[in-house]
Amino acid sequence: MSEPEQKSGGDGGDSTVPKAVVSRLSLYLRQLQQGVRDGQATISSKELGRLLGFTDAQVRKDLAYFGHFGYPGIGYRCDELISAIKKILGTDQQWPVALVGVGNLGRALIGYKGFAQRGFRIVAAFDNAQETVGTEIDGVRIHHLDSLPEVARENKIRLGMIAVPVGAAQAVADRLVAVGVEGILNFAPVTINLPGGVSQVGVDLAIELEQLTFSVVNRGTAT
Amino acid sequence: MSEPEQKSGGDGGDSTVPKAVVSRLSLYLRQLQQGVRDGQATISSKELGRLLGFTDAQVRKDLAYFGHFGYPGIGYRCDELISAIKKILGTDQQWPVALVGVGNLGRALIGYKGFAQRGFRIVAAFDNAQETVGTEIDGVRIHHLDSLPEVARENKIRLGMIAVPVGAAQAVADRLVAVGVEGILNFAPVTINLPGGVSQVGVDLAIELEQLTFSVVNRGTAT
Repeated sequence: MSEPEQKSGGDGGDSTVPKAVVSRLSLYLRQLQQGVRDGQATISSKELGRLLGFTDAQVRKDLAYFGHFGYPGIGYRCDELISAIKKILGTDQQWPVALVGVGNLGRALIGYKGFAQRGFRIVAAFDNAQETVGTEIDGVRIHHLDSLPEVARENKIRLGMIAVPVGAAQAVADRLVAVGVEGILNFAPVTINLPGGVSQVGVDLAIELEQLTFSVVNRGTAT
Repeated sequence: MSEPEQKSGGDGGDSTVPKAVVSRLSLYLRQLQQGVRDGQATISSKELGRLLGFTDAQVRKDLAYFGHFGYPGIGYRCDELISAIKKILGTDQQWPVALVGVGNLGRALIGYKGFAQRGFRIVAAFDNAQETVGTEIDGVRIHHLDSLPEVARENKIRLGMIAVPVGAAQAVADRLVAVGVEGILNFAPVTINLPGGVSQVGVDLAIELEQLTFSVVNRGTAT
């Protein structure tokens, strides 16, 4: 995946922690949870790094942004570090999410298994297409976009996901901001402008592919 | 979007250029193309940076990894820099892509408008579900996974996209590698192991959301 930096332009939040560090926290979290599932109680920065392809120095440096988590001669206590990272990432709480745009991508997001396990729940979806409004997909109700204010209030929506065509993305973002959404995950391949108080992460799938071709092309020429 | 670093563990390619720099190249490219559409012939590093929320120093430093593109007193010639960045990213050529997994996500990827404009064409899709095999979605033929070798050869497939359940991801990756795919974009929320010669970029949508909640939570506490 590629960097959220530019898409986080509207992010008024802290900038002392590099985004790359934050994204590695997510990877550490997954690896630690896998370890616990495998019955592992503690792990060294060396092993945690090795499992993810990082150096132990990288692991220690990343975690040092947030405190001291290791024990001399023991390493990290997995459960303890898992709780700490979840708290840092904000995933120690539930995040009711509103999805706007129920085309193929929107349907895929509703069905995406990876969200619920991480505390993200799409509690309502919105669209303007009369044929979908009022229906349910995987138990998620599809509302008309005009009812966003009431539904957002009722469901205490804090995050929005935009899966609409490029031309509609900014208008949808403005409506999400108007109902008090704190962060937006934007799947439309366009940069949207947000007020300073609202965070944004953009997902441009073509950028992912460009990152891939870069490494393919450069490996090809480098060797 | 979050960092591809760990997912690129199988990436035998150059590592001298930080992934964050490469992902910013994609952003510069988009901004430059927008500028050209708006009739702009040249742009300064200052303006290019401003439009994307970066400093001009950042822009110059990023581009300096790849050569000297600016002209004193002029800045960058948009067309020239666009061609240069496309060449660097490898998107000055067409990349026939094979998609494996035609569930909601797979269908969304087939319909995703952002790929074609960037030179990525899903030329064939694969699934094991008898009801989908033999059908077409948006003009893309759905083949049985068993016919991957022939179809990959016929279509000169170089990249693969994995949109199958977690449990099937590694097996699918192995089959893509076996037919000579050079890079894999993996949407299954799991790290897959690839030989050194094959690049990987992983897309874990929950990680995107964690990056978002991090900035939401930290802004909340920081202010």
